[in-house]
Amino acid sequence: MPMDVPTDRRVGSQRLHQVLGAWHRSGATYAALADGLRAAVQSGAVPLHTRLPSERELAATLGVSRTTTTAAYDVLRDEGFLVSRRGSGTVTTLPPGAVERITTHTVLTGHDTSVDLSAAAPSAPPELHGAYLAALDRLPAHLGGNGYAPVGLLELRQAIADRYTARGTPTSAEQILITHGAQQAIHLLVESYAGPGDRVVVEQPTYPHALDAVRAAGARPVPVPAGPAGLDVDLFESTVRQVGPRLSYLIPDHRNPTGTSLSDEQRARVRAVARAHRSVVVGDEVLTDLTLEGAEPSPFAGDGRDSAVVVTLGSASKSFWGGLRIGWVRAHPDVVARLAVRRRHMDVGTALLEQLVTVQLLARSDELLARRRQELRARRDLLVGLLADRLPTWRTTPPPGGLALWVDLGAPVSSAVAALASQHGVRLAPGPAFGVDAGLERYLRLPFTETPSALHRAVDGLAATWAALAGTVGEVEAAQEPVGTQPDMAAYV
Amino acid sequence: MPMDVPTDRRVGSQRLHQVLGAWHRSGATYAALADGLRAAVQSGAVPLHTRLPSERELAATLGVSRTTTTAAYDVLRDEGFLVSRRGSGTVTTLPPGAVERITTHTVLTGHDTSVDLSAAAPSAPPELHGAYLAALDRLPAHLGGNGYAPVGLLELRQAIADRYTARGTPTSAEQILITHGAQQAIHLLVESYAGPGDRVVVEQPTYPHALDAVRAAGARPVPVPAGPAGLDVDLFESTVRQVGPRLSYLIPDHRNPTGTSLSDEQRARVRAVARAHRSVVVGDEVLTDLTLEGAEPSPFAGDGRDSAVVVTLGSASKSFWGGLRIGWVRAHPDVVARLAVRRRHMDVGTALLEQLVTVQLLARSDELLARRRQELRARRDLLVGLLADRLPTWRTTPPPGGLALWVDLGAPVSSAVAALASQHGVRLAPGPAFGVDAGLERYLRLPFTETPSALHRAVDGLAATWAALAGTVGEVEAAQEPVGTQPDMAAYV
Repeated sequence: MPMDVPTDRRVGSQRLHQVLGAWHRSGATYAALADGLRAAVQSGAVPLHTRLPSERELAATLGVSRTTTTAAYDVLRDEGFLVSRRGSGTVTTLPPGAVERITTHTVLTGHDTSVDLSAAAPSAPPELHGAYLAALDRLPAHLGGNGYAPVGLLELRQAIADRYTARGTPTSAEQILITHGAQQAIHLLVESYAGPGDRVVVEQPTYPHALDAVRAAGARPVPVPAGPAGLDVDLFESTVRQVGPRLSYLIPDHRNPTGTSLSDEQRARVRAVARAHRSVVVGDEVLTDLTLEGAEPSPFAGDGRDSAVVVTLGSASKSFWGGLRIGWVRAHPDVVARLAVRRRHMDVGTALLEQLVTVQLLARSDELLARRRQELRARRDLLVGLLADRLPTWRTTPPPGGLALWVDLGAPVSSAVAALASQHGVRLAPGPAFGVDAGLERYLRLPFTETPSALHRAVDGLAATWAALAGTVGEVEAAQEPVGTQPDMAAYV
Repeated sequence: MPMDVPTDRRVGSQRLHQVLGAWHRSGATYAALADGLRAAVQSGAVPLHTRLPSERELAATLGVSRTTTTAAYDVLRDEGFLVSRRGSGTVTTLPPGAVERITTHTVLTGHDTSVDLSAAAPSAPPELHGAYLAALDRLPAHLGGNGYAPVGLLELRQAIADRYTARGTPTSAEQILITHGAQQAIHLLVESYAGPGDRVVVEQPTYPHALDAVRAAGARPVPVPAGPAGLDVDLFESTVRQVGPRLSYLIPDHRNPTGTSLSDEQRARVRAVARAHRSVVVGDEVLTDLTLEGAEPSPFAGDGRDSAVVVTLGSASKSFWGGLRIGWVRAHPDVVARLAVRRRHMDVGTALLEQLVTVQLLARSDELLARRRQELRARRDLLVGLLADRLPTWRTTPPPGGLALWVDLGAPVSSAVAALASQHGVRLAPGPAFGVDAGLERYLRLPFTETPSALHRAVDGLAATWAALAGTVGEVEAAQEPVGTQPDMAAYV
């Protein structure tokens, strides 16, 4: 949906009550209400430039005094999260610099000392610098042209095709389209196949920004459960049969956020469903390289024969580094040609040097990934151990792959934990960010990509958060879950 | 609109007749028809995977023998532009490798010896390599993080803000959003403000992929004339008043493709229109640095006070190099915050090293741009001279800025020239690519960004093309203009 210019969007007091959910906690009531409202603005549950109910009206709905709502609004006005304008009431906004703090702190070191567990993304490998130098040596061959490469450089496409072939899915370079990261691949695929009102089948929980892409296209995500036990493939099949989706989006390997994968038999069934219903199924393989235990997953595209309807995508971000914006799509050459044509309204190609760097990194990926997996295993085990020690009521199963734990908190308090944790030095993506509706309040994704010392600090902060919430958990369990939370301010990759 | 999976799209024979326009020329009729059909597929006037009328039906409509249509279809089947399938007739497609040839030949040197005048984009400056090395020295400070920078690196945002301030538009870093090239900025702005059925006012002619972005959003471009005499600002104002657009997209400086600019008074009026109607006007400044004669244009954003509704965008592609995918938006901080949030379904940020390189290039832009302008002036004058000599009936005014000539061919044959020129070693964007409807058939954009020797070869090819067409121009003038041409296969930047 387009963004409004001068907004007249408003949120009613009943709706705000729902969104706030279990906002009560020990301490001053106005401060707890201010915390809840701030978190709702920061997470996007209450969009920017939305008019709030009057202080009197909200007080009546929440059953608190008008002094409480007035004080809470005052706090947020002081902080810059609310602005009151004559004739237009009290409207949500962001303090100057808030976007920088929210979205770029991880690359602006020193501006923020909190531990970022909102993104599951590893730091750069030591090989990166050498790969850039080697790529720079190869750049002059490309400087005579205008630099536009809408489909991608042939040598990168060939290198990626060769990897698929080596895994057992015969693939030619013309089956590969290079994109500006996996997110652009998702955006392009969703927007190419699904328009306003169309259905797109997704796993629940799933990658939040895939849901963003579906919603931005005006399409409707239709969730199929994919909890700790993995995707329910029977339900996937019957859903495809019933809703006739234009597209399904699955994460077959080390699923974000749960860490589960499709079995070989499930993969074959998913391909059969795509074939039988002529319905495109996209497999997001950005985590495929990150098997931590057991056998590597078999390729989602199988023998590659269904590549008109079984489309895969990947990226350099998780295997190598997020600062490299290189992704790709693998599909039938006809699909690649059509995507390349459609893509042109989004950009006119991918940065050349970044492509040359990725060629270098792919050539050394065996060694680089072996070290990365070893490091991730150690950090996963550290985080699991710290949680068992400090937060024994939280339940989680160490995943055999991927970048994060999926933690059952035992109570529907994920949004409250995420809001409060920011005051204890930990940035989190609340559970509902990973779902279509406002379920998943019992769950929290905890990436183990940070350094051991940061993980120690993070668990300190989580334990402090949990203690602060402790007095209210009984109350929280009885409370209505927030509805329609669509976290909207951070990149929960 | 979404792309179809198994298509049942078809084009009727009357419609195909319109699209083909003046396809007749001297020589074998079947070959001329094949040329016209091939050009229609390559340009996207007939989309891929569209069923053509039967040979018998097309023959009747065109008034040629069935032998002629059969032979033309046979040629295109042999070449791989058509495929016939039992039960689904004859369907348009692309030969294997066609996408590579069409879209990447400029970076795959040796695969194509034709001169590319379809893109107006200069080659890389000699400073690029040093800028990459200097950027690489600064990269280690950013390697500890996850590399995601959804708003952009502060130092690049500051450098761009400082340039605006130096030009007379006071600007802070929080008013700048870094994007993946200007095209992403256009896509993001269009999609943020305009949804299905909304109107977007554009100049006519204008930048083709801005029109792609408007159409991809499901919005309707409403053209205002901006021919060789520049934008008709009276008509712009009355159009904004009448249609109440969500957005207007203008190129205030050295307009692509005509090379005209808004006067100071016109800029002030456009800002007043934006202010009065609370209607966002985007000024695309990608060509702003390329003033070749006279004074530099005054900043489109003026004193910057209207930056909630007067939004500008720019990029490194034309000033520096297209292989660098760095663009930006300048707007009110609130608008930047909202765009940063919306952007997340498109990608999760811009490549880090590319941003650091752009910081380096901006620091040396005075020297670099002075040399670039001098080179462009010489190439412009060379191309004007060659055309006066070899194609004296073509009329053009040497533009005081930008990268291309806008040539009046004297007859509505631009698509025919573009189609035929590809056989004479010149790749062209036909005039209608720059318009909303199928007008502009009298016009051809000729970039002067290529080397002098390539420009010589290009004019040789154009003269040969024109000679081949010569016998048919009278006929062409009397013919109906093609309707609804939406060129769709090359990047006409």
